[in-house]
Amino acid sequence: MRFLTGVKPSGHLHLGNYFGAMRAAINLQDEGETVYFIADYHALTTVQNREELHTYVREVALGWLACGLDPEKATFFRQSAVPEVHELAWLLSCVTPMGLLERCVSYKDKVVQGFSPNHGLFAYPVLMAADILLYGADVVPVGKDQKQHLEVARDMAVKFNEAFGKQVFKLPEPRIQEEVATITGLDGRKMSKSYNNTLELFGDEAKFKKGVMGIPTDSTPIDQPKPVEGSTLVELHKLVSTPDEHAAFVADMQRGGRGYGDYKKQLLSKLQAYLAPMRERYQHYLHRPDDVDDILQTGASRARELAEPTLNAALEAVGLV
Amino acid sequence: MRFLTGVKPSGHLHLGNYFGAMRAAINLQDEGETVYFIADYHALTTVQNREELHTYVREVALGWLACGLDPEKATFFRQSAVPEVHELAWLLSCVTPMGLLERCVSYKDKVVQGFSPNHGLFAYPVLMAADILLYGADVVPVGKDQKQHLEVARDMAVKFNEAFGKQVFKLPEPRIQEEVATITGLDGRKMSKSYNNTLELFGDEAKFKKGVMGIPTDSTPIDQPKPVEGSTLVELHKLVSTPDEHAAFVADMQRGGRGYGDYKKQLLSKLQAYLAPMRERYQHYLHRPDDVDDILQTGASRARELAEPTLNAALEAVGLV
Repeated sequence: MRFLTGVKPSGHLHLGNYFGAMRAAINLQDEGETVYFIADYHALTTVQNREELHTYVREVALGWLACGLDPEKATFFRQSAVPEVHELAWLLSCVTPMGLLERCVSYKDKVVQGFSPNHGLFAYPVLMAADILLYGADVVPVGKDQKQHLEVARDMAVKFNEAFGKQVFKLPEPRIQEEVATITGLDGRKMSKSYNNTLELFGDEAKFKKGVMGIPTDSTPIDQPKPVEGSTLVELHKLVSTPDEHAAFVADMQRGGRGYGDYKKQLLSKLQAYLAPMRERYQHYLHRPDDVDDILQTGASRARELAEPTLNAALEAVGLV
Repeated sequence: MRFLTGVKPSGHLHLGNYFGAMRAAINLQDEGETVYFIADYHALTTVQNREELHTYVREVALGWLACGLDPEKATFFRQSAVPEVHELAWLLSCVTPMGLLERCVSYKDKVVQGFSPNHGLFAYPVLMAADILLYGADVVPVGKDQKQHLEVARDMAVKFNEAFGKQVFKLPEPRIQEEVATITGLDGRKMSKSYNNTLELFGDEAKFKKGVMGIPTDSTPIDQPKPVEGSTLVELHKLVSTPDEHAAFVADMQRGGRGYGDYKKQLLSKLQAYLAPMRERYQHYLHRPDDVDDILQTGASRARELAEPTLNAALEAVGLV
């Protein structure tokens, strides 16, 4: 059972990224064979600045290693380290009806968001299909919004196999991720970079502290019980504590007798304790860039080994070898 | 001065191909550095049968060598031998506005002709631009119908250079080919495979003879002067004879005293004499497939040397190295 996860590099990782997607993705490494790639070719559709791209890619690499991606278990590499994916994308393009791509919502969404409607954005589902098929993924964990892309990849695989009369590609299955509990941001809305309400995993410590201590609360007097339903403090605390610890925290708030500042300090300390081992690993890798490069290069070699037989079979089928 | 010519493999070469395009393209090898590639990736947009593709590619390779392409002077290779072109195509895609591709007429034309509207056909101008820019062509000889593609390639080069603030690509210049005299087919219309009125350069000799002897003529009696204006015999004769020979042929027809069969035999013998050295080279290469492979592989190595610095500069500019 081989799982494939593509990670688009898009800036500083935050608590919402971790609990919303990364943790579940990383846990797959204990369930089967895992392949993770940093989708830097994909990033080019919207990031057209080399320094920005470098920063984003490094952040993803360090962040995922820090959060527990184990390079001994998983294959972890940069998409651009295996440029062969574009050759496969071309072969797929030649059997991909334009209508299939025109129906993809991701392109329209990006354009609505104000990105320039370039051909990279439009063609991205083909590249994504090539990524999925090249590495022979059995299962692709997808959020609801990416489900269509996986269906498109399956369609392309079927069309290719039919057009050339050979079972070159196996059909990947989606694993629709459990409706991930939305992670509450500092202002009570969904934690998202676009709301500027995030807690960065590996950012500045003072800012992190300021973020937690500045969480808006109501004006319940110190001696009164604090409301816990929908409380940002409670939501965040739950993520980083055991059920017993969390029950005690909630009971303490409901008992009253302390100010919000106290609860925020408790939350801060829980968060810090939870993140400490990740932050330690982050620092470890931050100061060993060569190690990170080695990991990604080893991953790229493994990825290439996975890719080679599939690409050769596809080229053979169309008549290009 | 580096010239680039892409040749789409699409079946048996005929007299119209040679006099309409190949001869002028091959002559460039005496004017400057020449790069010719067999556009087999391109062929995939419409040919989805491996045997057919193999045949087409071999025909083009043998045919161009037979017609005088000199592998000592020119770089001659299969497009698919340098798959790096697809990586460059992706980088270009990310700066190519969809509107630019939507305005390209070649896609619409193909769809009108009944080809399935696949993404390969739509994206082809990007691949073509990548071919042109990858090999650093200074000049691209184009027919009127391909002029737009070269303009698109220039647009992409400008957009890329601007987006990433570096002069990565030089701008290729078009050389609009002289309005090529339309080559008259056996039925008096333009010689074209789709009219089934061609004389194949390297096909079956009996069929070739039957084609020439079967050219429709009018019912002018033997002793009367024959009309020469618009005569298929005269048009074809002109292509393969010296001006003196041709003047004598025309005078002979105008004098009368012979039947069309005689003139057809004269034409046939001229055609055969003209094509003889090409057909000899064709047979030479036909029986030395390894030599052809060697030529194409040597060409691919040279092409890759041309491609490498450009691709690296482009990857460096976007931040992928």
